[in-house]
Amino acid sequence: MGSNESGSLVSEPKDPLSQKNINNAPKGRRIRLCKSAPLSDYVGFETGFASGPSTKSFFRNIHPSFRMVAAFLTVYLGLGTVCFYLVGHQLKGKKTNGVLDAVYFCVVTMTTVGYGDLVPNSVISKLLACAFVFSGMAFVGMTLSKAADYLIEKQELLLVKALHMNQKAGPIEILKDIETNNLRYKCIVVFILLLLLILGGTAFLATVEKLSLVDAFYCVCCTITTLGYGDKSFSTQAGRVFAVFWILTSTICLAQFFLYVAELNAQSRQRALVKLILTRRMTNVDLEAADLDGDGVVGAAEFVIYKLKEMGKISLEDVRLVMEEFEALDVDQSGTLSTSDIMLAQQPQTEK
Amino acid sequence: MGSNESGSLVSEPKDPLSQKNINNAPKGRRIRLCKSAPLSDYVGFETGFASGPSTKSFFRNIHPSFRMVAAFLTVYLGLGTVCFYLVGHQLKGKKTNGVLDAVYFCVVTMTTVGYGDLVPNSVISKLLACAFVFSGMAFVGMTLSKAADYLIEKQELLLVKALHMNQKAGPIEILKDIETNNLRYKCIVVFILLLLLILGGTAFLATVEKLSLVDAFYCVCCTITTLGYGDKSFSTQAGRVFAVFWILTSTICLAQFFLYVAELNAQSRQRALVKLILTRRMTNVDLEAADLDGDGVVGAAEFVIYKLKEMGKISLEDVRLVMEEFEALDVDQSGTLSTSDIMLAQQPQTEK
Repeated sequence: MGSNESGSLVSEPKDPLSQKNINNAPKGRRIRLCKSAPLSDYVGFETGFASGPSTKSFFRNIHPSFRMVAAFLTVYLGLGTVCFYLVGHQLKGKKTNGVLDAVYFCVVTMTTVGYGDLVPNSVISKLLACAFVFSGMAFVGMTLSKAADYLIEKQELLLVKALHMNQKAGPIEILKDIETNNLRYKCIVVFILLLLLILGGTAFLATVEKLSLVDAFYCVCCTITTLGYGDKSFSTQAGRVFAVFWILTSTICLAQFFLYVAELNAQSRQRALVKLILTRRMTNVDLEAADLDGDGVVGAAEFVIYKLKEMGKISLEDVRLVMEEFEALDVDQSGTLSTSDIMLAQQPQTEK
Repeated sequence: MGSNESGSLVSEPKDPLSQKNINNAPKGRRIRLCKSAPLSDYVGFETGFASGPSTKSFFRNIHPSFRMVAAFLTVYLGLGTVCFYLVGHQLKGKKTNGVLDAVYFCVVTMTTVGYGDLVPNSVISKLLACAFVFSGMAFVGMTLSKAADYLIEKQELLLVKALHMNQKAGPIEILKDIETNNLRYKCIVVFILLLLLILGGTAFLATVEKLSLVDAFYCVCCTITTLGYGDKSFSTQAGRVFAVFWILTSTICLAQFFLYVAELNAQSRQRALVKLILTRRMTNVDLEAADLDGDGVVGAAEFVIYKLKEMGKISLEDVRLVMEEFEALDVDQSGTLSTSDIMLAQQPQTEK
């Protein structure tokens, strides 16, 4: 637990892939869909994923943001290890190797597992542990969760490709399928990973730490949920080497699973709302409310804005801000923008 | 930690208050903003808050969803208490009163604090603890976090009213201020609450549990982060009564604080993106891309859709779905909706 604050907070653009849809519009459409704006210039994390159907390069080009997270994790763990190695004699409990115990203590603390098999035993080490758990929580929640999302998105592609293996689907079909069922596939991927981590952890604890199967499973559950009672924990040197990697991975994995399930719930609620609003009868009151430019009829774009506002996707404030910009650009006050408008509005000498 | 999965996942409508803005539009606006759609019919949790400026009723009418969460929490804790009371003899550690220990163990488990001062000591109790920590995690993350958000929103109103005390601001000004600085105020409220909880917890542990000040603060930090090493914990009867309420409140409070900080970051990033896109020069290519109905000029509504799409607030898929509905309603294929269109389109005998 404890790595799930920010995964969904960033309401960044959701469909960098949608450029692909333009050529697949249903026949007989009278009004063309406008071209997608160059989103990828502004989007951070998703760019690596959206960079096209050349799936081969996905595993070679690690996104720079991800590399930064990895570097940050190394620095954080390195600093923690040095600190707790220096106050190692002030830690009380089952000890193995000085450096290893410091890394292990650092991971157990930052993930908030907190077994208590090693506890700080002096004022300095206690305050150090407090500082590390707060910063670790913030770091895991705000950064690692997003990095995990990025990694799972890459695994997702493997899963979807495997599922499409028999259908000979092209890269565009695969990307479209991912776009529609993105969260569902992520849930599946993370669930499979979680099962593997639980099985691996149980097997390891049963063989290396010589726990009974029930105890091994119990210790695994206590760890991945960050409960960490501490009556069963990693006490051998080999166990702690394994624990450093396994605890970090499995706690984030479970948190990510809960995150995706919650997102999936929110998405299906949102889709139900969209359906409800799309099929709701339009009345004359709606028509009047949707008439943005007050010309008595509702154009396609006005209708889209009205419905999206009803769905809660955009707010009045969003529309207001853009409308102000529109009015500044519409120099001839015709209510429409033409080439001459933007030429005039954006000339340096024109007062704005 | 461990209660932060879903706070932000529900991308529900954000401005149920925005109806208030209509009459405050800048003078000289040539194009009126369309009326806000009746959002509150669809919004769940926020409705209670959006129900208007009659602030007196806020503290009397508890929202039904919130009551449901409270009932669910009672049932969950009740069930947990009964279970762990029945297997009480299979719990190992410092014991006080049977029922109290069961509640305490249940809270320590569901919040994933997991001190380890009481640990399950049989196969049944171990598996029971595993089941309770998973369900507790899901419950805390998905439900309690939202309930906490609702409660903090109510406190926020108190804070903002206090801040506006000297300015004699009306309820509408207060609501507008909350709308703009919503997250910032929530952060302040939750931070104040957190400080009070930390101070209260430290004072309690120092006086009732007879810990030194450093140890009391260390135990508080270990608890609110759900680290729970367990070398210092609540061992007296009075301490455990206090702990049941304090642990539940403080862990959720800290998680909510991290959540709001992350949301605040995302919001300021989103606002920077909005500013960037609004001030970006329009080119002829943009103009062509924004021209939804292909008439050669870009109307206000088309401009709004284009810019919102660039900002990532809406997706091509959103627009496509609404456009399909528009085309179904536009019976005379004029490209605009009028009263006669919707009369014809929605008559039962008209084929759709």
